[in-house]
Amino acid sequence: MSSRADAPIGVFDSGVGGLTVARAILDQLPGEQLRYVGDTAHGPYGPLPIAEARRHTLAVTDQLVADGVKLLVIACNTASAACLRDARERYDVPVVEVIVPAVRRAVATTRNGRIGVIGTLGTIRSRAYEDAFAAAPDVRVTSVACPRFAEFVERGNTSGRQVLGLAQSYLEPLQRADVDTLVLGCTHYPLLTGVLQIVMGDGVTLVSSAEETAKDVFRVLTELDLLRGSLAEPAHEFLATGPAEPFTRLARRFLGPELGAVLGSPARAFSLDEPQPAPPDVATGSRYGPSLSGSVNGSTPAAAATPHER
Amino acid sequence: MSSRADAPIGVFDSGVGGLTVARAILDQLPGEQLRYVGDTAHGPYGPLPIAEARRHTLAVTDQLVADGVKLLVIACNTASAACLRDARERYDVPVVEVIVPAVRRAVATTRNGRIGVIGTLGTIRSRAYEDAFAAAPDVRVTSVACPRFAEFVERGNTSGRQVLGLAQSYLEPLQRADVDTLVLGCTHYPLLTGVLQIVMGDGVTLVSSAEETAKDVFRVLTELDLLRGSLAEPAHEFLATGPAEPFTRLARRFLGPELGAVLGSPARAFSLDEPQPAPPDVATGSRYGPSLSGSVNGSTPAAAATPHER
Repeated sequence: MSSRADAPIGVFDSGVGGLTVARAILDQLPGEQLRYVGDTAHGPYGPLPIAEARRHTLAVTDQLVADGVKLLVIACNTASAACLRDARERYDVPVVEVIVPAVRRAVATTRNGRIGVIGTLGTIRSRAYEDAFAAAPDVRVTSVACPRFAEFVERGNTSGRQVLGLAQSYLEPLQRADVDTLVLGCTHYPLLTGVLQIVMGDGVTLVSSAEETAKDVFRVLTELDLLRGSLAEPAHEFLATGPAEPFTRLARRFLGPELGAVLGSPARAFSLDEPQPAPPDVATGSRYGPSLSGSVNGSTPAAAATPHER
Repeated sequence: MSSRADAPIGVFDSGVGGLTVARAILDQLPGEQLRYVGDTAHGPYGPLPIAEARRHTLAVTDQLVADGVKLLVIACNTASAACLRDARERYDVPVVEVIVPAVRRAVATTRNGRIGVIGTLGTIRSRAYEDAFAAAPDVRVTSVACPRFAEFVERGNTSGRQVLGLAQSYLEPLQRADVDTLVLGCTHYPLLTGVLQIVMGDGVTLVSSAEETAKDVFRVLTELDLLRGSLAEPAHEFLATGPAEPFTRLARRFLGPELGAVLGSPARAFSLDEPQPAPPDVATGSRYGPSLSGSVNGSTPAAAATPHER
């Protein structure tokens, strides 16, 4: 295994959204090391002119490549729309972005050939998704900019009446277009799948560009024999071009819960030979521990009342 | 908002796998509190007889419900197969499990009506997925037990030749059956999507029971008006019926990367008015900071070499 394979994967985003991509990569590839840069000094890119998003992106990705990453992930839809081709031409490491993987998945998924795309203003205005769908002429693409979604996600406001109403108004054109597949064309949106699925209905399949991009990273590293071989515990770096706060606070939200203390039972031998678990009130020791299943009473703690029907 | 709505969501699994469900729930509902119990004293349930898995499960879920959770998630396919109906009858809180949500999604996704299911021995032997697909008589279901996958995931061995070979041999009957949709019927398997997608090919859509279950939790809490209203920072509990180690070590892997220290730049005003970013070697201050984009040189750091083609 070459030392190149042991180099980190570079992940770029305009802010914290790309952390959904970073996390999906580490889900699949827990032995890899990441160097993540969020360009919070200039992001969010959504409202910026393409040329400006491009300059900001290349400034950071130039540095990532110069620092020796083995693969570059442009984990931002707006930046991918702005400069994928520049990045491919510019760097001698493989470049993975977020648009093509999601488009490939959407084309493989749709049944009626009607696909919706939601994203930032910058992404939708760039028509980058329409371009990426060009090879599937039978597909009808309907794109809608959802400029306020990212802000709702960053506030943690992803359930309840307000975001539901917002989603209903944004997604109405997609429902009218009868799409059966919806591409989440912004790395913030995997944190909105609950509300998006409710509004679009069960018949619509959501495609996460974060998850599909991670699969692409997996595939490229496998094909190029660039999987990290080192057995040393991987170390990740998270960098922001702006102040460490509020990046840190938001990033925790995007990376998901941290474990904290775990309450466990002491290890011991245990055999289960009674048909009924004990009711909770006779439990001794750790309430959830092996001792619970061993003591017996026979009554069931909660009588059947209002079983939940779906 | 009632105090019932402020109660935690109970999440049960035989071990750490249900943490992929827990994480997906908190992605959608960052304001909710979780009480997670992994029955590591008796898990994994995969190889157990159904009756035994049922007794172990109910012993823990009785306690969770007695402790006042507002909704119970059976975040384990084997446990869901063993005792969904018991749990529905037994408890006066809504119960969400992992099989029905994934089946609903798979039926909405398939184009050729051929769906594959992979899971533990216990899950596959129970034929719980076949039962859940009963309402879709045109669907042909092919189920395959993949007993060693969970152990590979827990070792972090999810890429490279060994797991690829294992996946190729497990999935061969599903390829022969020409499935276009594959249900990941075990909460460990979302950490295998990279290798599963490579082996099954791009034309196959993977359905994660973790993600679909989280959407179901979102839907049920929304419909029943049980979303947490408290603005206090949510606190989660992670419990194991066995020793805290190795649950803790594995759980970190399943919950994904933690942030650690973030390297940021001091906040300052910055205007971008030069077309070319500086090459890395003239960067001053924070390498990725705003100062980088402000200094100008005009050369591109890496000449076009071997652009990556897909």
